[in-house]
Amino acid sequence: MKKIRAAIVGYGNIGRYVLEALQQAPDFEVAGVVRRNPSNVPAELAGYKVVADVMELEDVDVAILCTPTREVEKHARVLLAEGVNTVDSFDIHGSIADLRATLDPIAKAHGSVAIISAGWDPGSDSIVRALMQAAAPKGVTYTNFGPGMSMGHTVAVKSKPGVKNALSMTIPLGTGIHRRMVYVEVEDGYTIDQIAKSVKEDPYFASDETHVFQVPSVDEIKDMGHGVNMVRKGVSGVTQNQRFEFNMSINNPALTAQILVGVARATMIERPGAYTMIEIPVIDMLYGDREELIRHLV
Amino acid sequence: MKKIRAAIVGYGNIGRYVLEALQQAPDFEVAGVVRRNPSNVPAELAGYKVVADVMELEDVDVAILCTPTREVEKHARVLLAEGVNTVDSFDIHGSIADLRATLDPIAKAHGSVAIISAGWDPGSDSIVRALMQAAAPKGVTYTNFGPGMSMGHTVAVKSKPGVKNALSMTIPLGTGIHRRMVYVEVEDGYTIDQIAKSVKEDPYFASDETHVFQVPSVDEIKDMGHGVNMVRKGVSGVTQNQRFEFNMSINNPALTAQILVGVARATMIERPGAYTMIEIPVIDMLYGDREELIRHLV
Repeated sequence: MKKIRAAIVGYGNIGRYVLEALQQAPDFEVAGVVRRNPSNVPAELAGYKVVADVMELEDVDVAILCTPTREVEKHARVLLAEGVNTVDSFDIHGSIADLRATLDPIAKAHGSVAIISAGWDPGSDSIVRALMQAAAPKGVTYTNFGPGMSMGHTVAVKSKPGVKNALSMTIPLGTGIHRRMVYVEVEDGYTIDQIAKSVKEDPYFASDETHVFQVPSVDEIKDMGHGVNMVRKGVSGVTQNQRFEFNMSINNPALTAQILVGVARATMIERPGAYTMIEIPVIDMLYGDREELIRHLV
Repeated sequence: MKKIRAAIVGYGNIGRYVLEALQQAPDFEVAGVVRRNPSNVPAELAGYKVVADVMELEDVDVAILCTPTREVEKHARVLLAEGVNTVDSFDIHGSIADLRATLDPIAKAHGSVAIISAGWDPGSDSIVRALMQAAAPKGVTYTNFGPGMSMGHTVAVKSKPGVKNALSMTIPLGTGIHRRMVYVEVEDGYTIDQIAKSVKEDPYFASDETHVFQVPSVDEIKDMGHGVNMVRKGVSGVTQNQRFEFNMSINNPALTAQILVGVARATMIERPGAYTMIEIPVIDMLYGDREELIRHLV
């Protein structure tokens, strides 16, 4: 069987976990890794091509974009136009439909496939949200995140004067309401009270219950676990009080990477175009004989 | 907007709930109801055509098969060959792949679409099972049913000598192990001990913890609520202990009916062929503008 040749574009936290997931996938081979500085080759990349541009790699079927979210569009535009499929975990919820609208005509014009916003939220959670809405079209779904580190909130805290290092944890309080637990290493000459005040005034935090603490070391309290609790109470037909709940407790980058590998597999099946995860059949993400999968999973 | 014209084939418990779900769906209209005795017209069907054969109805886009599961294939074969899409909630897990293999060439030859085994298990649970496997390819998923009535087990009890009426409830004990709580109305001349013995020897019950009770009236204890608890602990890439859980507590026929209406909508989008639910994009089940759905759900 011809293996799917995947390039890892960007080798930060997600890229490392994508490499592990590709090594575990029987139908994939790693075409190479793309990083800004290709002479930076850590031990685990010793057996692989490390380059500065995907086009230096041979026969790439799909590029797994592990860059910062704001660089996804730039890379995807170029690759799709070259006929290379792309997948990404673009996570700015308000801009997903726009990214899809931008990439779709490029993919269609060049016979390539993009699957965008494929992580866990947006991503696998999106499928569960859509399924819950199909099961009970009227009703409210609450997505409760955490406990886990919020990247966006952490970056916001780090930008404040006097902050040497920071961590913002998201704590779910139910019905989509979250508490923010913020841990800060304070620079000399600043007080935690000053910093707490500026954090609580930031738009990222202003509407949430926020607690700010001084710690000697952020690294010592950081872990990459995360969680979701999604609930819907709704109406099927005219029958009220249908209840649905989805929970997970996971290593954040490991799950994102695994989902990216799943949708990379799916790009080999879909017709040219750009898709979100709710637009592709779940079976297309799975390795194995289709008929066997149906026998075991349906 | 042209509405999707749906026929309800079979008007038992599921058929009644399908009518309610269709009445709530803005993009559907009821082409008519098919029943063995079309002169049997209850009050809620007064405004609809009630006939003995789908072919007596005009412009049917999709037939929603609400017949006993063993009659699904017969109806689907005929309808698909006439170019009418079909959906069903065929629920004999071991035969789903075979039904798909039988219907797929008929649908393809006549430009029609079948979506089979579309209820909640098989059905929406199948999508969650496939998604959990995509998220953590190695691991075990347990599907725990109940508390709720098991049709198959109830029918098995009813077939025993001395049983006037019966109800078999499924109680989840975790890791896919279930307790059977059996309630029996006993005929004169029989004892509950005789009946309990023959129930416990039945292959349906032999490997499960089973308790048999005599009750004065089965109707008084019957309700149509049901539940599922599905859990997976598995590995994403090489990262262990990824945990996923899906729960629901629902009215059984109401959810089955709502899912059937969702896949009936999807038949208007898919290419000709026969599909299980894990083979179709979840968004295709939903009413509404596609771009809006993506903005709200992804």
